[in-house]
Amino acid sequence: MTKILIIGGGGMIGQKLARQLAADGWQGQVAEVTLYDVGFPSNCAEAHRRIVGNLTGNGAATGLAATRPDIVFHLAAIVSGEAEQDFDKGWQVNMFAGWSLLEALRGEHEASGGSYQPRVVFSSSIAVFGAPFPDQISDDFLSSPLTSYGAQKAIFELMLSDFSRKGYVDGVSIRLPTICVRPGKANKAASSFFSSIIREPLNGRKVILPVSDSLRHYHASPRSAVGFLSHAASLDTGLLEGRLSLNMPGLSCTVAEQIEALSDIAGAGTVALISSVEDPEIARIVGGWPQDFDSARATALGFRSETSFCDIIQTYIDEDLGHS
Amino acid sequence: MTKILIIGGGGMIGQKLARQLAADGWQGQVAEVTLYDVGFPSNCAEAHRRIVGNLTGNGAATGLAATRPDIVFHLAAIVSGEAEQDFDKGWQVNMFAGWSLLEALRGEHEASGGSYQPRVVFSSSIAVFGAPFPDQISDDFLSSPLTSYGAQKAIFELMLSDFSRKGYVDGVSIRLPTICVRPGKANKAASSFFSSIIREPLNGRKVILPVSDSLRHYHASPRSAVGFLSHAASLDTGLLEGRLSLNMPGLSCTVAEQIEALSDIAGAGTVALISSVEDPEIARIVGGWPQDFDSARATALGFRSETSFCDIIQTYIDEDLGHS
Repeated sequence: MTKILIIGGGGMIGQKLARQLAADGWQGQVAEVTLYDVGFPSNCAEAHRRIVGNLTGNGAATGLAATRPDIVFHLAAIVSGEAEQDFDKGWQVNMFAGWSLLEALRGEHEASGGSYQPRVVFSSSIAVFGAPFPDQISDDFLSSPLTSYGAQKAIFELMLSDFSRKGYVDGVSIRLPTICVRPGKANKAASSFFSSIIREPLNGRKVILPVSDSLRHYHASPRSAVGFLSHAASLDTGLLEGRLSLNMPGLSCTVAEQIEALSDIAGAGTVALISSVEDPEIARIVGGWPQDFDSARATALGFRSETSFCDIIQTYIDEDLGHS
Repeated sequence: MTKILIIGGGGMIGQKLARQLAADGWQGQVAEVTLYDVGFPSNCAEAHRRIVGNLTGNGAATGLAATRPDIVFHLAAIVSGEAEQDFDKGWQVNMFAGWSLLEALRGEHEASGGSYQPRVVFSSSIAVFGAPFPDQISDDFLSSPLTSYGAQKAIFELMLSDFSRKGYVDGVSIRLPTICVRPGKANKAASSFFSSIIREPLNGRKVILPVSDSLRHYHASPRSAVGFLSHAASLDTGLLEGRLSLNMPGLSCTVAEQIEALSDIAGAGTVALISSVEDPEIARIVGGWPQDFDSARATALGFRSETSFCDIIQTYIDEDLGHS
């Protein structure tokens, strides 16, 4: 039975991934799924085990590695806004805890005489990129992050690539677009408003738009994100030819186009719940983020996302509206 | 008096930089120069202080930062071949010791109420790049290293950029071409032979060429490297617009062109001291390295290097031949 560990399993994507694994199994078979996180929601997804813990804690990573999962999804992170505000916490969790995980897995690889070589799927981010950009970012564009979060994601990608090149693990990093529409409450990510401006009006609540509606950004739904993770976990990594970080496909659109799609689906009365109040700090962070990608490699490797923002809103309505 | 700290001051480039500072001072004034390294050559360059120590040691970085140098040259590294052979040592020195240094400097920045913000010049490397490449690598090409050394250099660049963006230090990373002709003995760098095939015959000794002479690579002399470091230390970093890593200018040529230049300068008898015996491990590492760059940004910022391999050989003859 395939042993799957989801670090950050209490988070939004981790929970959706766990639900999919509970429903469909792994490649048609029942999988043994362990969720690890600092906490879990009250309506937590089913799993064989749930472990409450912090990957920065002493011995935490070695304890997890000792169970020798076949697949490790590393989704845990301090999000962009919080990593910007709390420099130490961001580096401790997003870099040092990641290093501990890789070292612990390498320890098991060596203890096994080299036979244990887990697939590690890392949820990286388009925040590894920093302005100025071309109109579409290509697969060989440099990573020059403008946030601590982006720097930490880029660094873990480099570590994972080197541990994989050495054969200690078998890694792949997927650079997620902004995930939209996030269910539940707003979080500390600077990108949180991209979801709030759709989610809150659909729930009959007022919401503030903190940036200009001409801002263009790059989105994929939580359902696509789960699809990316599953696909990455079963990918033939030999096809990556040593470049283990992949820009995921997504939908590029402006905030105005997001709102237009909301109007098409839910009407002008819903859109009227949005009011504009610029937040210079959020505008500064998000203004340095990418707007569009030519994700040719990932597309050729079979990764798929939505092609209209209406589809993204519909995914939220189908999966999450009224469920929390 | 400007306080200058050279970490890795016992190494070849550190020594040449120290000699230049002793001779010319810093911007026309006498500078207070401290050299820090695990050891120093017997014919060590003059300096106000020499400290024998290891940056990985407990309290080493905080001790150095406490002296509040105005300029820190961070040149210390485990070289590519050794970092490939000793995974732990490479990461400890090239990543973790670098982190300690940045954290220690940030500590002084904060203790000073923000007034202390040292210039940090990091000697990075074109090993941050990994094949496949375009014929010329542009300034916005991705970093996808194929060695642990390259990954560690790329990671320190990202850290230095983020600490600089936060204002804790004022950093710049210069990605050095392969430095050629290195004086003295061969070292454990996989690139060592690029120098040996020139240096050893000029000293009347036989030497082995471990790769095909059709291999193209990218070179600059030690004199150019010292020039890059000095220029980086006095650069207006505001001009870098947040992209603090610069590909240095260099000379692209094949091994055959290197040997032809040697023949022009020293004759066929000298060239006859070179014999070819392929080393697959060196060929593998070096075959994944870049061959040529369009270093437009660095050139626009005033960095300069040699334009012929004969000039590179002549620099060795002028500065080093017969001096060791």
